[in-house]
Amino acid sequence: MKLLEDKILNEGKVLEGGILKVDGFLNHRLDVALIAELGADIAREFASCGADLILTVESSGISIACAAAFKMGIPVLVAKKHKSYNISDGVYTAPVFSFTHKTENIVLVSKEYLNAGAKVLIVDDFLASGNAALGLLSLIEQAGATAVGFVAAIEKSEQGGRALIEQKGVKVYSLARIKEMRAGDIKFE
Amino acid sequence: MKLLEDKILNEGKVLEGGILKVDGFLNHRLDVALIAELGADIAREFASCGADLILTVESSGISIACAAAFKMGIPVLVAKKHKSYNISDGVYTAPVFSFTHKTENIVLVSKEYLNAGAKVLIVDDFLASGNAALGLLSLIEQAGATAVGFVAAIEKSEQGGRALIEQKGVKVYSLARIKEMRAGDIKFE
Repeated sequence: MKLLEDKILNEGKVLEGGILKVDGFLNHRLDVALIAELGADIAREFASCGADLILTVESSGISIACAAAFKMGIPVLVAKKHKSYNISDGVYTAPVFSFTHKTENIVLVSKEYLNAGAKVLIVDDFLASGNAALGLLSLIEQAGATAVGFVAAIEKSEQGGRALIEQKGVKVYSLARIKEMRAGDIKFE
Repeated sequence: MKLLEDKILNEGKVLEGGILKVDGFLNHRLDVALIAELGADIAREFASCGADLILTVESSGISIACAAAFKMGIPVLVAKKHKSYNISDGVYTAPVFSFTHKTENIVLVSKEYLNAGAKVLIVDDFLASGNAALGLLSLIEQAGATAVGFVAAIEKSEQGGRALIEQKGVKVYSLARIKEMRAGDIKFE
């Protein structure tokens, strides 16, 4: 999506350790007009997928998930992040290693809101190594629900997450797909 | 706002310790159509306030803030929560005690995105004791910006947060204002 690629080229910053900083429009300060366009694009791409729920994870995925969900007329389920498993019975949990923070978190959702048979579209801000995606896919599997797709606003292809998701038979769609990046030089697929 | 009050009456659960659980539509599973209506109402109420930024705090305020911001045509700044002050120089920070979790967090925003002279509308999911509001107001004061209003989707009047905000000369607006609540019995102002 050219709008997002241009925004990344103009305002994104490549930090050490392969981190792309998009704090100015996607993660910290939110360019809501841009995010609404991302949502509309996702809704078009998945218009006929039959999804009845969007699953995202706090907190950077929420705005994009809501923008898509509003266009698709379906609710959003926000997976929570915890530091430990010291939580209640009524939840599905999965471990997720954070590439940016070098820590392991637990993601969880209430069993009450993720039902067997649900058709779930996952929406997140980034796809890199695919760890977050695998954690969210695990929650869906545990519930006996089905993932109908995985959407990332920004994919960093080099880190190989796409293959891990596709191996599970789940379609991957990213709005900006970065082939390689260095400070001052970002190339898209 | 009757739509939200009805939703609270039908689906909210009053837990021990004065906690109102609205996980089914506002905090965990998000009723995006409802949240869009909340955003439209906020945009109408603050149509002439001159706000150029909405400030919220992760993660439950994000969806409501985005819905309002989209209608108002302004960006959202999402204050981050941390456990400690062990963070970089480029941020404003303030302590916030969480009524629900009985812990103190730090809220922070990048100095880069909260500028002197900005007119800021704060949007959050709950107003109770006002601790989160005071933390966010402190960030705005530190930046030399001005708060033009504080919006909560749900206010729990008994806990007195409104007076603390109004003492600072900031208008308070809540979409559902709970006078008192017990299990199975919620009364609005």
